[in-house]
Amino acid sequence: MEWHEIYDPASAELDQLAARYGLHPLHVEDCRHRDQRAKIEEGQGYLFTVLKPVRVGEDGNFAAVDLDIFLGTDFVITVAETDCPEVRALIGRIHQAMANEARSDRVYHRIVDELVDSYLPLLDKLNETIDQLEDQALESPTPDVLSTIFATKRTLIFLRGVLVNTRDLAAHLQRIEVPWISHEMMPFFRDVYDHVARNLDMVEIMRDLLAGTLDVYLSSVANRTNQVMKVLTVLGTIALPALVISGFYGMNVKGLPAAESPHGVMLVLGAMLVTTGVLLWVLKRLGWF
Amino acid sequence: MEWHEIYDPASAELDQLAARYGLHPLHVEDCRHRDQRAKIEEGQGYLFTVLKPVRVGEDGNFAAVDLDIFLGTDFVITVAETDCPEVRALIGRIHQAMANEARSDRVYHRIVDELVDSYLPLLDKLNETIDQLEDQALESPTPDVLSTIFATKRTLIFLRGVLVNTRDLAAHLQRIEVPWISHEMMPFFRDVYDHVARNLDMVEIMRDLLAGTLDVYLSSVANRTNQVMKVLTVLGTIALPALVISGFYGMNVKGLPAAESPHGVMLVLGAMLVTTGVLLWVLKRLGWF
Amino acid sequence: MEWHEIYDPASAELDQLAARYGLHPLHVEDCRHRDQRAKIEEGQGYLFTVLKPVRVGEDGNFAAVDLDIFLGTDFVITVAETDCPEVRALIGRIHQAMANEARSDRVYHRIVDELVDSYLPLLDKLNETIDQLEDQALESPTPDVLSTIFATKRTLIFLRGVLVNTRDLAAHLQRIEVPWISHEMMPFFRDVYDHVARNLDMVEIMRDLLAGTLDVYLSSVANRTNQVMKVLTVLGTIALPALVISGFYGMNVKGLPAAESPHGVMLVLGAMLVTTGVLLWVLKRLGWF
Amino acid sequence: MEWHEIYDPASAELDQLAARYGLHPLHVEDCRHRDQRAKIEEGQGYLFTVLKPVRVGEDGNFAAVDLDIFLGTDFVITVAETDCPEVRALIGRIHQAMANEARSDRVYHRIVDELVDSYLPLLDKLNETIDQLEDQALESPTPDVLSTIFATKRTLIFLRGVLVNTRDLAAHLQRIEVPWISHEMMPFFRDVYDHVARNLDMVEIMRDLLAGTLDVYLSSVANRTNQVMKVLTVLGTIALPALVISGFYGMNVKGLPAAESPHGVMLVLGAMLVTTGVLLWVLKRLGWF
Amino acid sequence: MEWHEIYDPASAELDQLAARYGLHPLHVEDCRHRDQRAKIEEGQGYLFTVLKPVRVGEDGNFAAVDLDIFLGTDFVITVAETDCPEVRALIGRIHQAMANEARSDRVYHRIVDELVDSYLPLLDKLNETIDQLEDQALESPTPDVLSTIFATKRTLIFLRGVLVNTRDLAAHLQRIEVPWISHEMMPFFRDVYDHVARNLDMVEIMRDLLAGTLDVYLSSVANRTNQVMKVLTVLGTIALPALVISGFYGMNVKGLPAAESPHGVMLVLGAMLVTTGVLLWVLKRLGWF
Repeated sequence: MEWHEIYDPASAELDQLAARYGLHPLHVEDCRHRDQRAKIEEGQGYLFTVLKPVRVGEDGNFAAVDLDIFLGTDFVITVAETDCPEVRALIGRIHQAMANEARSDRVYHRIVDELVDSYLPLLDKLNETIDQLEDQALESPTPDVLSTIFATKRTLIFLRGVLVNTRDLAAHLQRIEVPWISHEMMPFFRDVYDHVARNLDMVEIMRDLLAGTLDVYLSSVANRTNQVMKVLTVLGTIALPALVISGFYGMNVKGLPAAESPHGVMLVLGAMLVTTGVLLWVLKRLGWF
Repeated sequence: MEWHEIYDPASAELDQLAARYGLHPLHVEDCRHRDQRAKIEEGQGYLFTVLKPVRVGEDGNFAAVDLDIFLGTDFVITVAETDCPEVRALIGRIHQAMANEARSDRVYHRIVDELVDSYLPLLDKLNETIDQLEDQALESPTPDVLSTIFATKRTLIFLRGVLVNTRDLAAHLQRIEVPWISHEMMPFFRDVYDHVARNLDMVEIMRDLLAGTLDVYLSSVANRTNQVMKVLTVLGTIALPALVISGFYGMNVKGLPAAESPHGVMLVLGAMLVTTGVLLWVLKRLGWF
Repeated sequence: MEWHEIYDPASAELDQLAARYGLHPLHVEDCRHRDQRAKIEEGQGYLFTVLKPVRVGEDGNFAAVDLDIFLGTDFVITVAETDCPEVRALIGRIHQAMANEARSDRVYHRIVDELVDSYLPLLDKLNETIDQLEDQALESPTPDVLSTIFATKRTLIFLRGVLVNTRDLAAHLQRIEVPWISHEMMPFFRDVYDHVARNLDMVEIMRDLLAGTLDVYLSSVANRTNQVMKVLTVLGTIALPALVISGFYGMNVKGLPAAESPHGVMLVLGAMLVTTGVLLWVLKRLGWF
Repeated sequence: MEWHEIYDPASAELDQLAARYGLHPLHVEDCRHRDQRAKIEEGQGYLFTVLKPVRVGEDGNFAAVDLDIFLGTDFVITVAETDCPEVRALIGRIHQAMANEARSDRVYHRIVDELVDSYLPLLDKLNETIDQLEDQALESPTPDVLSTIFATKRTLIFLRGVLVNTRDLAAHLQRIEVPWISHEMMPFFRDVYDHVARNLDMVEIMRDLLAGTLDVYLSSVANRTNQVMKVLTVLGTIALPALVISGFYGMNVKGLPAAESPHGVMLVLGAMLVTTGVLLWVLKRLGWF
Repeated sequence: MEWHEIYDPASAELDQLAARYGLHPLHVEDCRHRDQRAKIEEGQGYLFTVLKPVRVGEDGNFAAVDLDIFLGTDFVITVAETDCPEVRALIGRIHQAMANEARSDRVYHRIVDELVDSYLPLLDKLNETIDQLEDQALESPTPDVLSTIFATKRTLIFLRGVLVNTRDLAAHLQRIEVPWISHEMMPFFRDVYDHVARNLDMVEIMRDLLAGTLDVYLSSVANRTNQVMKVLTVLGTIALPALVISGFYGMNVKGLPAAESPHGVMLVLGAMLVTTGVLLWVLKRLGWF
């Protein structure tokens, strides 16, 4: 079995291999035009697969690159994007582990299997982010939280797209009947399908939870505005009687009751406190604090 | 019929049984790597099933563990997680009740049946929680209610995932054709399917009701803010005429009307009360209280 | 043809009939454990059907009970819940109308048909409630309206569950091929299916309308809060210039302009009215009232 | 070919025709009980179709009536509701245009085709309404707009129900194999299907747009409340420093700074303007206006 | 192979071609009545296809026009709308590139392929718009942003409709079996399907993101209102103690404490500052700023 590793899709090596193994021009073109969907296609004497490894970019955002695999009876060709060290490392690791492997379908399964498992750390990280977002939405619903919710939503939407296509690919793999894939590999491909389906379940659950987080955010802000309004109203309640009464006694009008009395101040002050007290008691009865 | 109960998936006993009965390495691996999806797979001479018993953890949160079953002509192997007393109790109870049972498919059905029924108490508890949440959302929409709504949503989402997979498993069981499951068991498996489907219906209904609870919460908060605003405005309405008029008479300006009159205070007070009264009457006409 | 009416599922009569007609133990058990889903199952020599009559309980809430029917070549067995006068009345009415009917499939069709039609009054009542709720949500969005919306939603969710299962049952009836159902009944079962489907359409439409009612409620509350805020701001606009100017002239400071003038009060009053007027004019230009 | 037009479903003529052509009693009953779903059913020697012409009632609301068609080898029977001039006009127009038509399937196609096209004016009117609603929701979100949104939603929900059933009917027509429909009519029925599908697409698009309109309404109200709050706060900002300072100088306390100075008023007025100016500048920096 | 380009659907040339190649009258009619759905239909000896090129109109809005193609063994007929320079340019470009092409199916594939790719610039522009909208919704949620969100939603809804129909068309193309399409074209049609599916994925993702943008908008406005309320309350907090105390000392009542003291002003001022300070400290403890 020969394993051809290509890290520059534009290289002439790919053209030579295409001529040697009779690869379809459209498949070679797919390798050279990035941003394909994950898919599997049967060619003449080989199987063409596009996988979507994911990586976290420098800006913290999720990015999906392409990894193309041609699988024939006695050859595997992997075509990776030029500038993706993660994929190079993954391929290198598998190459080392399977140096003496004679069957191309086993190598192919190993690559697909490891790739599917490589989504897990990202999923765990997203899960953690959503946990934190829920707490923050409840306790401090700032615009930053809103922005993070939206960014996480964006990541989940993209990830879901990748996983849905990968699941279709894995489902196709379970049904495939080509001479260069041994029948005993089928349980292993079913296992791959199971893993992708579990990943997809996780993404769907996270999408649902994230939508809940946004609802919590909005409800939480509404609740806080309600609290602020209550504080404002309580403040007004404390101040208004005093203002009204002191305004009354501030008038340059004759005959203000008790104004000339030596206990005038005490009486007025008492009136203020009683009115404020009554208002506060009413608000307390209404369950405001 | 032999029933092998294993409570430590890492034990060598599982390896011996795998060798004896020809269990597929992937299935043994599934027993040892937890967090599988509920599923059913046909192996060579046996049926491999993963079930998901649920338990309420110490923190009040829902948790699903794994219970793996191998069913062959004359054997049943159950592999439970090490640290789950509930599953151990359930298996023990069935073991005692079916001590003299000679057919492995009956034992298998009993385990699946009891497991599906074990979801009911949790579902009832959730139903009760949602009932309470609705009342609380209407009467006291605090952040705690929001937090409980979210936690309940999380539980329902997870539970739904488990039940969807269990339903697929039960649907598969109805169609299965293997020599070691007697045809007369089919009505019983259809019954299991019915129970899972009913559980799933309940979860879907609860999800729908919970979404309604959140809507009620948000509307309730909006309503309360509206009430608070009205109180604030009514307070302002009562106070403002008095403040404006007393401010007017507090000016150090000559020629304030009626200021020198002996009935000045009465006239001014009357003006205050009339203006406030008119404003309150207008608000009442607008239907504010 | 014999029609066995049973109104106590626990009675020994059911056991005798089970022995006589060879009813499957699971079906007998279904009769005794309430809260089954509407379903149809083919037994050995008979058809087992679970229907879900609905009734409005004393608390005004919707409740579904069970009505089980066994249909064989020359017998019909109906098993009703013990404490449900409505079902007893319905069965009694049909029994009287079909006293001389010799064919069991006609009796069976009549029961299913009348049961499906018995949902209509409830649907009409719900439709009316939703009409009222819309008006109330627009005109007086009180917490009571919110509570009624939620209760109606709950009823619709349950009703939908019942009708979906009944529709599947009716679809199954159209395809069934058993010797004890004459082929000429098929158009009648298609008619039953049509009625269930129309009921289900109505429920879906009502769910959609109810969701709209909640949106109207929330928007209506937001709108009212907006109105209250405007009133508060307009009140402030009227009062503030007067307060500021009278405060200014209330100062114990020398040299207040025009304070000593005999027209002082008129000038100050004019200044107050002009400022307030200008502010009101600005608000009017902004389209506030 | 004979075309029987019936405008009174209760008439004895329908019974005579039923006897003559062997129409199934259930179909005759469907003609007499209104509010059927659009559907197509194969009878013995004829095809029974229920169509749903729509009309705009006097109250501006949408209403669907029934139009029943029996199609046989050499006859067409149309049964319209008694009190619907629009349907009578449509039938009359087609009757005139096809007076010499010898084939019943062509007449049948023409009726179905014209009926499907008769939905277009209503759809165009709805589209226009939604366009206006969007503008109004943005510019003047009054309760009237909310009420119109809800009424339009109701119309769309009903219309969608009618069109979904009509689409199923048209799909059924494409697959039908009866001797009295010539095979060369198939492209014409596919054309009818296309038109219904396009109508349904339009309705789905309008539902989506209308949901957007409601979101715009709610966001627009929230935005306006935000603006009102800002105006209130800016008003408070302008007035508060003046009130605080004039209150201070209004106190009957000895030793008020600069109170005795001849430039006292100017100093105090300056202090008021500077404080207000600083507050306004801060609000401007925060981007409030 | 002959390629007939028609840029005026009403021209007599189309009638002549219809007669020559036996085109179905309904297909000719489809060419002349615009606003068809994208579709593919098999005629006698030819394939009829409706494509939907998109263009950005002068008002910045999206518009879809019709492009009809008839494909036979040795002919291609393209019928474009009269007033669409973009489609004319596209056809012209392909005509030049494939001047010597002898096979009609290759020409047909090229047209379909280029048309599907012509959606990409519009999709990229929409993606950019949504990116900007998210930022604007967070930072300056004005009514303009709301209006743009709605317009973008409208475009996406229409675009989705076009793409769903085009995808069905492409799926149909993959399965088609007609003598005038060589079997070796199949991988190329699968490639077209892939491109349409990817475009559709992008639209679905953008719809999801846009819905998120609206949620962000609403949450952002709610948050801002909350901020404004806090500012208003803080302003009130600063002013109220001063107002109450100065009102108190402004009263024409005897015996005001410390009013006669030479340090009166200082004492009163101190009381004001301390009360305000305490209130601000309480608000700070509540986490308001």
